[in-house]
Amino acid sequence: MTSDIILTGDRTTGKLHLGHYVGSLRSRVELQHVYPTFILLADVQALTTHFERPGLIADSVRQVALDYLAVGIDPERANLFIQSMIPEIAELTQYFSMFVTVNSLRHNPTVKNEAKERGYNDLYYGFLGYPVSQAADIAFCKATLVPAGEDQIPHIEQARKIVRRFNELYRPVLREPRILTGGRLTGLDGGSKMSKSLGNAMYLDSSREEVELKLAKAKTDPARVRKDDPGHPDICPVYEYHRHFRPEQCADIHELCSKGGIGCTDCKKLAAQAVNELLEPIRERRISLAGRMNHIDEILVEGTRKARAVARETMSEVREAMGINYFGG
Amino acid sequence: MTSDIILTGDRTTGKLHLGHYVGSLRSRVELQHVYPTFILLADVQALTTHFERPGLIADSVRQVALDYLAVGIDPERANLFIQSMIPEIAELTQYFSMFVTVNSLRHNPTVKNEAKERGYNDLYYGFLGYPVSQAADIAFCKATLVPAGEDQIPHIEQARKIVRRFNELYRPVLREPRILTGGRLTGLDGGSKMSKSLGNAMYLDSSREEVELKLAKAKTDPARVRKDDPGHPDICPVYEYHRHFRPEQCADIHELCSKGGIGCTDCKKLAAQAVNELLEPIRERRISLAGRMNHIDEILVEGTRKARAVARETMSEVREAMGINYFGG
Ligand code: SF4
Ligand code: SF4
Repeated sequence: MTSDIILTGDRTTGKLHLGHYVGSLRSRVELQHVYPTFILLADVQALTTHFERPGLIADSVRQVALDYLAVGIDPERANLFIQSMIPEIAELTQYFSMFVTVNSLRHNPTVKNEAKERGYNDLYYGFLGYPVSQAADIAFCKATLVPAGEDQIPHIEQARKIVRRFNELYRPVLREPRILTGGRLTGLDGGSKMSKSLGNAMYLDSSREEVELKLAKAKTDPARVRKDDPGHPDICPVYEYHRHFRPEQCADIHELCSKGGIGCTDCKKLAAQAVNELLEPIRERRISLAGRMNHIDEILVEGTRKARAVARETMSEVREAMGINYFGG
Repeated sequence: MTSDIILTGDRTTGKLHLGHYVGSLRSRVELQHVYPTFILLADVQALTTHFERPGLIADSVRQVALDYLAVGIDPERANLFIQSMIPEIAELTQYFSMFVTVNSLRHNPTVKNEAKERGYNDLYYGFLGYPVSQAADIAFCKATLVPAGEDQIPHIEQARKIVRRFNELYRPVLREPRILTGGRLTGLDGGSKMSKSLGNAMYLDSSREEVELKLAKAKTDPARVRKDDPGHPDICPVYEYHRHFRPEQCADIHELCSKGGIGCTDCKKLAAQAVNELLEPIRERRISLAGRMNHIDEILVEGTRKARAVARETMSEVREAMGINYFGG
């Protein structure tokens, strides 16, 4: 048995935020030292919801690449590549499409939720097929581990089923993936998870002042009116920042808040300070990298070239397994 | 305005029959002298219904190519190519998928009918997307004319809408196609159109004896019991053979049958004779070509290479129009 391979990535619909950091970026930076890692800039999947704004996607491809490198993704260890430049993924999606039922896609909870959230009164065909295309992203590089947020569990489960079905129908040339779930960060409005589409996100390139301001405005436990009212940190989004970014001291904050021993303003300042400590070096690297965009382009071109070689190899095996490799090779 | 370009082709799910000949092959042989012509061996679309039998598709690719060359398609004039070997078609399908609604696909009457005919109780995602993939087949080579049977009208209409939408959303780099309808041949059972899946087909490589036998067994006007009963040629499938293959004498047969002046046995023999006159040279060419399968493979490889060059060119324009041609070229 060959060792595990990681596939991970993000839709290129805007810069990345702290929710991405907690959910997967942090662990990717560690995992790249342990496993061969492919990181996908999912511009085709970005089009499923942003087909009317392709300009935003083109810009985001480079912004997301900057975010990756700024948080510590090392292009020597992790292979960054652009989805739309690997036509083999489109081919594999097409072959998977033959045996995936429309019903199984409609019942995919993430498709259901996103369709509800975005208020589609009619689904687009490409959007419905999101899980099929995601299965192809994972399968083309024979990835076995997919670090992703909990909301991705149904997608990865479906990818697993699709790969298994392919292997049964033809020949077992593809590998079944499993998910590696990371944490989850509530939005600054306390409402839901952090999400650019919900407008409650703290971006990785936020300035020191923005971090302070956004945290200062964040929702807290509504039961606290005076600063010595006992609070409920477990329902407070600010407390989540302590958990994720000041893990050693978060037990103290929990106690202080519960006893009314700290005011929300002070508590928020401590959280902002921790976030700024994390973001400071990321910000600096981002600025320095942004001054060398040619270098970023080179990394993307080279990573895509490598991923494409892998994709060609896999597609040749796929066609062979399906019996449609008519002229060999 | 550049001149018209033809795209036509068949799913590679078995050898071609007289229904194909009447519906489109006959006109393709003429049109190849008038317009630049692309002929698609649609093996990917064959998989939408035959994904469990890829071996049949691999065999059919060469059988259909033989049929084409045997009826008189000239590879110097018409570019024969294999769909699965043009990944750009899969890419274009993917981009079209973003803005085509599931509802518009479900309402496509051909999708509806075929789903009913084949008795799917659940639709496959790839099958549902058939019209999107067909739009990509037509658009990648900027074809403007699609010679096809009447049952394809809704597909081509949808392809036209998809291309128009693409041109509106991004930039007008693609061309809107229109259909060129051919005739239609009833199945030998008189039930429906001739179709391999209905088992009522007369294949182009049928032997002289098979043609005679199949026509001898064909349904006729059920009102005729004795040979001098007046018949209704317009509801008789054998009469259709006269119309298509003995056009000069078919008015005579119409009159004779209506008056009870000819027996069905004799009438069928005349039809069989006409079909055999048509098929004789086709059969001979087919046998001679089948002895040089390497030559067929060369024609397919070369035609696919040329089609792929066109596909690359178009996809580069498509990506440019969409604003996702990140690094140029
Ligand atoms: S003290 Fe901190 S954890 Fe407690 S409610 Fe206020 S902001 Fe939230
Ligand atoms: S005579 Fe010919 S056209 Fe008339 S019913 Fe018989 S087979 Fe049909």
